[in-house]
Amino acid sequence: MKYPTGIKVKVEKLICYSNRGMCLEDDINLSNQYYLDKNIAIIHKKPTPIQVTKVDFKNKNKTIIKEAFFKTPSTTDYNGLYKGKYIDFEAKETKSRTSFPLNNIHEHQIKHIEDILNHNGIAFIIIRFSILNETYLMLGDVLISFIQNFKAKSIPLSYIKTNSFIIEEKYHPRMDYIKVIDKIYFGGDKNEKK
Amino acid sequence: MKYPTGIKVKVEKLICYSNRGMCLEDDINLSNQYYLDKNIAIIHKKPTPIQVTKVDFKNKNKTIIKEAFFKTPSTTDYNGLYKGKYIDFEAKETKSRTSFPLNNIHEHQIKHIEDILNHNGIAFIIIRFSILNETYLMLGDVLISFIQNFKAKSIPLSYIKTNSFIIEEKYHPRMDYIKVIDKIYFGGDKNEKK
Repeated sequence: MKYPTGIKVKVEKLICYSNRGMCLEDDINLSNQYYLDKNIAIIHKKPTPIQVTKVDFKNKNKTIIKEAFFKTPSTTDYNGLYKGKYIDFEAKETKSRTSFPLNNIHEHQIKHIEDILNHNGIAFIIIRFSILNETYLMLGDVLISFIQNFKAKSIPLSYIKTNSFIIEEKYHPRMDYIKVIDKIYFGGDKNEKK
Repeated sequence: MKYPTGIKVKVEKLICYSNRGMCLEDDINLSNQYYLDKNIAIIHKKPTPIQVTKVDFKNKNKTIIKEAFFKTPSTTDYNGLYKGKYIDFEAKETKSRTSFPLNNIHEHQIKHIEDILNHNGIAFIIIRFSILNETYLMLGDVLISFIQNFKAKSIPLSYIKTNSFIIEEKYHPRMDYIKVIDKIYFGGDKNEKK
């Protein structure tokens, strides 16, 4: 049986929700590595929280985990430091063409974003509309005020376009979200300064 | 065969390296929860990094990890935010009565502490001498300069006593390391202010 040549791309789409076969998470991890290498910012993805229930110590060189479960994260996935400021964010992609479903973000992640804002940290979410190939940065206070004011299940793309910042996709770094943060909080443009 | 009544404590000691059966990690996690509840600081332990190699999706309600391995952490264990400042630290206990062995801290964790200091974050290590029941906070720059100047395999307790801050053990929070940070960086004493 022959498949049309597009089939592989389609499979990648299903896994990564991306037109280019590259997950948002991969893009951000590569960007963070770029920021680290260039000494621009120190931002790391937190490991996925896993509850380990069975462990095999028989192998002296390497402990093998035999049973474990994924746990719900209590904070956002990424945090770190840029120009002396605490940075904290969550990154999510959606296959929707029209809105970002809020069930993508857990309630305690929203609480965490509120806490960060209250303690003078920089908090935001990165939203990718995979099929449209558009990625936005929405500041934490905009997200919180949307949730409080609209009691909606999702944020319309039109609202995001008006109230967020588009993140350029480049070769290096793939997702230059620090450029957006720099403009908002430090009034600068890294590229112009150099 | 009869064991002396002290045997259980001894077992706990072996696991936790603690006279009181309470690990440093537990003490810090409880303190972080206290800081969070009292809206003093937002500091979380990062999940242990685990490489998942086999997953069972058969159970629709819960994905079971069937094989996984512990990975070496690339950053420190704890980070967060206090009074708008980025906080980053590693916590270790030792059974030694005389010195803190530096092989407790990975090379890339030291690199990470250096990076944090260069970007104006607050970085430190918490060292507990379990048998002595003494816990110290050593600032990142003191640690880095010790490593660079002495090329030693461990930091003598006498050096730690002179160049670090003792952390009081209390009921709530168990390890009030934020009080130490507050005194050093914000010139304040939380308790006196309140």
